[in-house]
Amino acid sequence: MSPLFIHKYGGTSVGSIDRIRQVADRIEGVVQAGHQLVVVLSAMRGETDRLLRLAHEITSCPDERELDMLLSSGERVTIALLAMELRARGLRANSFTGRQVGIRTNSAHTRARISQVTTGRVQEALANKMIPIVAGFQGVNEQSDVTTLGRGGSDLTAVALAASLKADRCIIFTDVDGVYTTDPNVVPEARRIPKLSYEEMLEFASLGAKVLQARSVEFAAKFGVSVEVKSSFIEGEGTLVKQEDVDMEGAVVSGVTGDRNQAKLTVVGVPDRPGIAANLFGQVAHASILVDMIIQNVSQESLTDISFTVPRNELTPALTLVQRVAEDIDAKSVGVDAEIAKVSLVGVGMRSHSGVASRMFQALSHHKINIMMISTSEIKISCIVEEKYLELAMRALHEEFGLQTFPDA
Amino acid sequence: MSPLFIHKYGGTSVGSIDRIRQVADRIEGVVQAGHQLVVVLSAMRGETDRLLRLAHEITSCPDERELDMLLSSGERVTIALLAMELRARGLRANSFTGRQVGIRTNSAHTRARISQVTTGRVQEALANKMIPIVAGFQGVNEQSDVTTLGRGGSDLTAVALAASLKADRCIIFTDVDGVYTTDPNVVPEARRIPKLSYEEMLEFASLGAKVLQARSVEFAAKFGVSVEVKSSFIEGEGTLVKQEDVDMEGAVVSGVTGDRNQAKLTVVGVPDRPGIAANLFGQVAHASILVDMIIQNVSQESLTDISFTVPRNELTPALTLVQRVAEDIDAKSVGVDAEIAKVSLVGVGMRSHSGVASRMFQALSHHKINIMMISTSEIKISCIVEEKYLELAMRALHEEFGLQTFPDA
Repeated sequence: MSPLFIHKYGGTSVGSIDRIRQVADRIEGVVQAGHQLVVVLSAMRGETDRLLRLAHEITSCPDERELDMLLSSGERVTIALLAMELRARGLRANSFTGRQVGIRTNSAHTRARISQVTTGRVQEALANKMIPIVAGFQGVNEQSDVTTLGRGGSDLTAVALAASLKADRCIIFTDVDGVYTTDPNVVPEARRIPKLSYEEMLEFASLGAKVLQARSVEFAAKFGVSVEVKSSFIEGEGTLVKQEDVDMEGAVVSGVTGDRNQAKLTVVGVPDRPGIAANLFGQVAHASILVDMIIQNVSQESLTDISFTVPRNELTPALTLVQRVAEDIDAKSVGVDAEIAKVSLVGVGMRSHSGVASRMFQALSHHKINIMMISTSEIKISCIVEEKYLELAMRALHEEFGLQTFPDA
Repeated sequence: MSPLFIHKYGGTSVGSIDRIRQVADRIEGVVQAGHQLVVVLSAMRGETDRLLRLAHEITSCPDERELDMLLSSGERVTIALLAMELRARGLRANSFTGRQVGIRTNSAHTRARISQVTTGRVQEALANKMIPIVAGFQGVNEQSDVTTLGRGGSDLTAVALAASLKADRCIIFTDVDGVYTTDPNVVPEARRIPKLSYEEMLEFASLGAKVLQARSVEFAAKFGVSVEVKSSFIEGEGTLVKQEDVDMEGAVVSGVTGDRNQAKLTVVGVPDRPGIAANLFGQVAHASILVDMIIQNVSQESLTDISFTVPRNELTPALTLVQRVAEDIDAKSVGVDAEIAKVSLVGVGMRSHSGVASRMFQALSHHKINIMMISTSEIKISCIVEEKYLELAMRALHEEFGLQTFPDA
């Protein structure tokens, strides 16, 4: 049995007829090498935005079932065009919608979750030496209404098909050639990371690296799908995301990330009674505002200060809410600091290497960078610093942990 | 039970967000009047051409299954946008694809024929006081692959739904306000015809009046669906196409049509043997070239001339073919005349009124217009004339049969 690959091409990779031809070139090569292939596509770059603009011309709050009907039209265009191109070259290819390849979801329109994947039709196509060209990002609910999977949905389609078909590898072709040790715009010495464990990739994703969404990584981890992120424009290796293995222990730290989408709220003079924090954060969570780090000061005269961070683009609703709660609980005032940023280290090696945190703090301190908040997990350490020091902090940590000479990169 | 209407809006009527709002205004009025309504839409004007251009950038001969996948995306956009607009107004509306409303077809991609209509989902929606907004032009075949119905396909969807749902009326909203006694650009006195029988409408359609395709009229006739063609921009009556009734006998002639898409081929010096004509027209038919009128001269010295008309845009392939056949059958030569046109009278009244043909020939002769060929059916008379006389012929006949003072127009 020849190996089976899933290829996923994003909107930039199918953004024009020329680009679609380049994708066809690549597919032709893979098929000529004797591999089996299933291709998942996004809509043409810009098309989803065009459709959203039309919807928002209609109403500021379009119906979500109808949004899915609207947005799911974009992938039908790219899959049909690529299948035409392949057939014009004499290759056997057929386009399939999400429904046709059996992507069943719940009914949470615009952010549906995959409930089942029944790939009978894809398997039949493969058995007939056909290349299935599949519309990403979409599925159908129980009523057979089209649903969409939300951000990164096409990646999720690819990973789900890879899991269901037990594919040998799922390759996500995008406009970058992988995950980097840090942002190359900040640290020119940044290097592509050849291999990452699912846990590391999840941390990178949650820290804002946009290469692969956390949902797709979780799905891949759950079903043990090896996912490679690769450039569709440059030949060469990408970043392979897979089960942690022995090789990965070499590096203590895999990468450094920086995130400016951070703001700090401080509730000053909170009566230090049991249940106060639960009340505060309960109400914040109820408003669907994501709280990241929390610090509670040591109590003085039965009063304490509670600081926490929220995404900066949610600061306004968070502040309105917290000011109301602060009154309720007789706190003195609410302070805001939007000029902060988060710098983080990620690496499975931290599990077995002690002293990473203290090296991080020392390196920051060496550059007179004050650490305002700290949070740690098994494979990640994050520090909140003043925003103006973010780039300096990223460079300092990248150098401290020797990431510019990453092994086998 | 409140009356049920099917509304169909063409590409111009949904060509912009403003136009979609105008359609929503009209729907709102119908619903507020207590009527039940099913709406069928085409793609936005220009969208099908845009998609076809993309396909033809890929290849001059795109795969037809893939063309259907591509083209069927256009209606998803308009149905979603209209449903959004109606919901934003507080009306209950849901978009449905051709598949979802049960339009089943054969597998003749790009020109599929409807085999079955199972409207369970539409009926359920209506029972729930929902306005179904249906994608026209599309269905699914037995494998549940999307198919398209070819030219005029959205009209056909509307008529098929009207038949299946036993709707009280099917209204086709378009950019003209009905069928005219003749082309108003040629004869300013032309008047809208308030009522036509199916047979008359079929003749108008086959003579090139583009208001309603022959397929939709045949379908409507078969199931007795009353179809009204109306302007979506001007208020007022349109043309109602229905079973012939007593009212219609008033007028001898309903309208005059002119058609420039005509060319004449003459095979000169054909040996007058049995089977020669069958051989000639058999080969022409095999090449899918539509022959309209045929004249065979009286034979002289065992030789005859055969003249026939073909659509002018098929003249080149027809000529190539006929020249080959002419050699085979030892004919002397092939003559071509592309500067001809067809002028026709249509009217169910011809069945019971004699003398229409002679009045027609006299009127043309009065203006010194030579008649080159004649063909008649029960409710139509067509004459081939020199193209330069077409407009004069149309004006003369319009006046001769008093169409400028059409009863009850």
